[in-house]
Amino acid sequence: VKTKRRTVVVKPPGGLYRVHFERDGIDRVGRELRQLTTGRRAVVVSDANVAALYAGRVLRSLSRARIQSALITIPPGERFKTLATVSRIYDHLLESGADRDTVVIALGGGVVGDVAGFSAATFLRGLPVIQMPTTVLAQADSSVGGKTGVDLPSGKNLVGAFHQPALVLADIKTPATLPERHVRAGFAEVVKVGMALDASLFRLLERHAEELLELDADLYSRAIAAAVRVKADVVARDERDRGPRMLLNYGHTIGHALEAAGRYRRWLHGEAVALGMAAAARLAVAVGWLPRQDLDRQEALLERFGLPLRLRRVSAEAVMAHMGLDKKARGGRPAFVLTRGVGVASVHRTLSRNQVVNALRQLGAEP
Amino acid sequence: VKTKRRTVVVKPPGGLYRVHFERDGIDRVGRELRQLTTGRRAVVVSDANVAALYAGRVLRSLSRARIQSALITIPPGERFKTLATVSRIYDHLLESGADRDTVVIALGGGVVGDVAGFSAATFLRGLPVIQMPTTVLAQADSSVGGKTGVDLPSGKNLVGAFHQPALVLADIKTPATLPERHVRAGFAEVVKVGMALDASLFRLLERHAEELLELDADLYSRAIAAAVRVKADVVARDERDRGPRMLLNYGHTIGHALEAAGRYRRWLHGEAVALGMAAAARLAVAVGWLPRQDLDRQEALLERFGLPLRLRRVSAEAVMAHMGLDKKARGGRPAFVLTRGVGVASVHRTLSRNQVVNALRQLGAEP
Repeated sequence: VKTKRRTVVVKPPGGLYRVHFERDGIDRVGRELRQLTTGRRAVVVSDANVAALYAGRVLRSLSRARIQSALITIPPGERFKTLATVSRIYDHLLESGADRDTVVIALGGGVVGDVAGFSAATFLRGLPVIQMPTTVLAQADSSVGGKTGVDLPSGKNLVGAFHQPALVLADIKTPATLPERHVRAGFAEVVKVGMALDASLFRLLERHAEELLELDADLYSRAIAAAVRVKADVVARDERDRGPRMLLNYGHTIGHALEAAGRYRRWLHGEAVALGMAAAARLAVAVGWLPRQDLDRQEALLERFGLPLRLRRVSAEAVMAHMGLDKKARGGRPAFVLTRGVGVASVHRTLSRNQVVNALRQLGAEP
Repeated sequence: VKTKRRTVVVKPPGGLYRVHFERDGIDRVGRELRQLTTGRRAVVVSDANVAALYAGRVLRSLSRARIQSALITIPPGERFKTLATVSRIYDHLLESGADRDTVVIALGGGVVGDVAGFSAATFLRGLPVIQMPTTVLAQADSSVGGKTGVDLPSGKNLVGAFHQPALVLADIKTPATLPERHVRAGFAEVVKVGMALDASLFRLLERHAEELLELDADLYSRAIAAAVRVKADVVARDERDRGPRMLLNYGHTIGHALEAAGRYRRWLHGEAVALGMAAAARLAVAVGWLPRQDLDRQEALLERFGLPLRLRRVSAEAVMAHMGLDKKARGGRPAFVLTRGVGVASVHRTLSRNQVVNALRQLGAEP
C-alpha cells in the first residue's frame, strides 16, 4: 500500500511554501524544483554520511529533470556547524558558478539544514533553498520555519538568519537508516509540540508511541505532519521569534544550557530538550500552573520514547552558568516557557534562580 | 542660520524607518534611540579613523540618554570588509553582553555600514541597527536600503543579508572631514540617481555642482535627501533587488568589474561607478537608446564633480574577465542598466560582449 503524500502549507509574512511528507520524495526533487523556478542549476549540500546514502538519488533526479547540479559535502556533526564550514561552502558555490537563480538543496539532518540554509541566506544576499530533511528531528521540526545558523565557540546558534525555504521535501523512509538513539531524540521535538501546543497530537503520541518508534509510515507521517502544522501556524503569526513562536522553545532554555554543560557531546539535542521539558514541567507544578497528573503524562510519554528524564553527574550550577547566553534571554533574565496543562504553554517571566535550581535538583542534578 | 532637519521615510515590505539629515545629528543619537526602543544597551561599531573623530560624541549622547554602551573599532578600509572582521565583531558583541534588544550603531562610511550591518543582521539572528553614515557615499546611498555584507577573496559583496536599519541618522557636517577625493567619489552615486531615475535631481546637480562639492549645508542636504527619496521609493517596491531596484545599479556592472580589475586599490567605489556610467552611456548611445546630448550632459556633470571619465592602463579584457561574477549576473549574461535619457533608466539584456568591449575602448581601455 502506497502511503499518500501529506502536505502542510506554511505562510510566513510575504511568502508561502509547502512541506511534503512522502515515501521516496528523494527521487522527486528534480520535478519539484522545475515547478518552483525557471532556474536550472542546483547545488546539493550534504554531509558525508547522508551523501553516501542519498546524494546519488538526488543528483539523478535533478539530472532527469535537466537541472545542472553540483554536490558539496561537509563533515558530519554539530562541531562542524561553524563559520569555517560556511566559508568552505561559499568557496564551493563560487567554484560551481552559482548565481542568484541557483537553488541550494540542503540534504541531511538539522546541522546540514542550518549550515546550508545560512550559507544560502547569505551568499549573494540570498539564494533559494530547498530543505530535504532526512532525520526525524529535521523532518518534524528544524527544516520548517526558516531558522538557519551556526555556532560560535561560546555558544550554539549565536549567528544566523531567518531564511524561509522555497520548499521542504521530506522522504519519510530516510529516518529508517538512523541509529535508534537519533530516532528517539527526534521524537522529543514532537512530544514538545504536543505538550506545548497540541493536546490531540499528544494523545496520538500516547496511543502509538511504540509504532512511531518503529517508524510505521502512516502514523509517522501523521505525527510529524501534525507537529509541522502547529509550527506553521505559529510561524505565520510570528516569523521572527518575538512573540508566539517563543512557545516552541518549550524545554529549550534548560535544554540548551544542558547541551552546553555537556559540551554538545553528552546529550543529543532532543535528549537535552526532553530533560529541559522534564525540568520545565516540574517548575510548572511548583508555581501552581501544571496539575500533577499532566506532569506524569509527560514523563510517561517521554519514557516510552526512550528519552532521558534524570540528570546524573551534572551540577545545577554548571547548567545555570550556561543559561545566561541563550538568545531568548532578555535584559539578563531568561523567559521560561511553562505549561498550564497538556497542550497549553505560556511564558513565565518571573522565575527565580532558586526555583530553577530546585527543578534541576529534583531531576537528580548535583548542587 | 540653522539648517533644519530633512527627513525621508522608507517603507520596505513590513516595516518603516526614517532617514534624518541634520547638523550635529551625532549628538542626538541617544535621544533618538530612546524613542525607538525600550532597550537600554547599544554597541557602537566604527573604524579607527571615524572613531577618533566622532565616537566620543556618540558615546556621550548615549550616556546622557542613560543607554549603556560599548565601542568596537575595526581597522579602516575595504580590505577589512571580511568575514574575519565580522567574526571579531561577534566576539566583541559576546564580550559586551549583547542580547536581542541591544542596538548596533554603525558609525562610519560604507564599509562600516556594511560590516556592522551584516554583523547585526546575523548575530542572534538579527539585532536592530542604527546607521550613522559619515561620508557622502554612505549618506547619499549605502546607509539606506538594507543591503549589508562583506567581500570574499574572489569578489566584492558576495556574502550578505538584507537588513533594514531601524533608523538612519546622518550628520551633514561630518563629510567636511573627508579627503576631497572621497567627497568627489561620493557624489558619483548622487549623479547616478539623477541620471538613472530623477531628472530634477540631475538639474539641481547641474545648477550647483561647485557649491555641492564645497558641502554647502542646505544644498548638500537637499541633494542627498533627494537621492535617498528616490532610493526609498525603489526599495519600497523591491526590497530584494530583483526588479526596479536593479535600476539603482546604473554604472555598477562595469564599475564593479573595474574595481576588481584595479584590485580595489586603484579606484574608489564612486570613481569606478563614474567610469561605469561613462561606459554605460556610450553603450546606450551605441544601441540607439540615449541621445548624444544626454551623454554630453552626463560627461560634463561628472567632470565638474572631478570624477574620472577616461580609462588608462587597463585592458578591456581584464575588465570583461571580472564581469562574470557580479551578483546581478543571471544565467551567465550580465543585465546592463542603460538610460534612454536623463532620468530614464531601463534594463538591457541582450548586449553582446563586443559592444561592451567597444564602449570600454572608447573610454581609452587597451584591447
